[in-house]
Amino acid sequence: MATVEWDDDAGGVRLIDQTRLPHEEAYVMCRTAAEVAAAIRNMVVRGAPAIGAAAAYGTALAVRDGRAREGAALIRAARPTARDLFWAVERVERAEDPLEEAHRIARESIEACRALGRHGAALLPQGVRTVTICNTGALATVDYGTALGVIRAAHEQGKEPFVYVLETRPRAQGARLTTWELRGLGIPHRLLADGAAGLLLQRGMADVAISGADRVCANGAVVNKVGTYPLAVLCREHGVPFYVAAPCSTIDGATLDGASVVIEERAPEEVTTFAPPGTEAWNPAFDVTPARLVTALITEQGVRR
Amino acid sequence: MATVEWDDDAGGVRLIDQTRLPHEEAYVMCRTAAEVAAAIRNMVVRGAPAIGAAAAYGTALAVRDGRAREGAALIRAARPTARDLFWAVERVERAEDPLEEAHRIARESIEACRALGRHGAALLPQGVRTVTICNTGALATVDYGTALGVIRAAHEQGKEPFVYVLETRPRAQGARLTTWELRGLGIPHRLLADGAAGLLLQRGMADVAISGADRVCANGAVVNKVGTYPLAVLCREHGVPFYVAAPCSTIDGATLDGASVVIEERAPEEVTTFAPPGTEAWNPAFDVTPARLVTALITEQGVRR
Repeated sequence: MATVEWDDDAGGVRLIDQTRLPHEEAYVMCRTAAEVAAAIRNMVVRGAPAIGAAAAYGTALAVRDGRAREGAALIRAARPTARDLFWAVERVERAEDPLEEAHRIARESIEACRALGRHGAALLPQGVRTVTICNTGALATVDYGTALGVIRAAHEQGKEPFVYVLETRPRAQGARLTTWELRGLGIPHRLLADGAAGLLLQRGMADVAISGADRVCANGAVVNKVGTYPLAVLCREHGVPFYVAAPCSTIDGATLDGASVVIEERAPEEVTTFAPPGTEAWNPAFDVTPARLVTALITEQGVRR
Repeated sequence: MATVEWDDDAGGVRLIDQTRLPHEEAYVMCRTAAEVAAAIRNMVVRGAPAIGAAAAYGTALAVRDGRAREGAALIRAARPTARDLFWAVERVERAEDPLEEAHRIARESIEACRALGRHGAALLPQGVRTVTICNTGALATVDYGTALGVIRAAHEQGKEPFVYVLETRPRAQGARLTTWELRGLGIPHRLLADGAAGLLLQRGMADVAISGADRVCANGAVVNKVGTYPLAVLCREHGVPFYVAAPCSTIDGATLDGASVVIEERAPEEVTTFAPPGTEAWNPAFDVTPARLVTALITEQGVRR
């Protein structure tokens, strides 16, 4: 079962409900563009490439239902930051056969992940100790993963990678999703609080950091889950390579730099988990890592330093 | 009601139970050194100066009960990192009147906080926007606070400080305790995820960072709540002053550097809140900020740059 999968019989796209993992493996069937838009907004589906594939199917549903413009607008408005969403909607809108185009996007996404996984794994030595943020595995993509795809490829090559998983507050995608995937893959790992990344690197416990990306700007700046930038700064401080793994669909040549990207701010309730009722919170979902902190960008086309 | 208060009638020391805040204001009465040691270990009382005062009373109880050596040993073994604990036990052990010495430590702690608050507030401009980690307020001390004491003094001087409060996973002392104190003091604030400190500084939303300390080493390295070091690195990256506020009781001339300090590792369950059952975690409670990242150390004796 893939993260995003078309169901011909149901006439819709089936998504694994990521808001209920790891405690429950439930699925959501979206039969209209509005349902897909809601699933993206509520983070039933998340991760830039997975959002892209879901958006592609949602746009195909909109066209099928004779509400192409309205449906595409709903999907474009679901979340502002991930580049793949806009790219996928546009591809399907322009296609002669929208559903076939959505299938193609999904297939290409899997192929891209496998290819970038191979390119990235070549950078990793035997027994490498990695640190990663958020979830960038099969759940963040159609299948296989980006940063986690690199680690997975290294694992499949017998390189025995070890993964330090940052919890990734406020939504705890590292704690909830990455640990769940790594256990399934049999890759040894350990969870830590986001703030513990400093001591981890101080102590020389990680050899490389690998993150995914939600949008790579024309100047090489990487927009990704909030907390990525602090990790990159710490890596530079300690001489630890900081790799970013993403398919080319995440690269946005039309956005000059990080300052031009809309950083989504989500509901304060995501942050106030432990706080007294009524506490005000600031909840940006992403941050911007400048290109000078990125050791290499790993895509399906290869490694760009 | 102070965080740590002797009760003559009960013949014990009363602690506000910080594990139950902010949802419940409950108190724990400790009548033996063993009970004080348990309260420190379980973080009913936490924050270096508060731990120091509790340890002082615990040692006085041990002496009263004719179990001086055994009781002091229990307290010394409760938590390894905060300097104030060892300093306070030693002072009370050497005193002619142990209970009077514990009272003196508690009084001095309050005076030190008020003095360092005044010294620190002088560094802050009108309308200053601060960012802070963990809890360093009245709850972390006998009363008034260290880093939060500085902010409180600025508030009392009409400087209208604003506070960005880092959640401080895994135990969320920022979310649970600092927001609770700031609300009580009427100081405007906003909570954010630890990983959002990067974007906060990228966007120039904070003018200064202020943290407390659990131990200041002879070489000026600051051992404090895990996540402090990443914040300090980010501050340097963005030219934002990083101040540390602590009473002199936290300065440990006998510990050369951060590498000599035992960094407590706590139970993995503190980190695995959101993770699948059985997930392994690494849970260091502190990290080390080198002196070169500390703009100034604020103590009751003044500001040392």
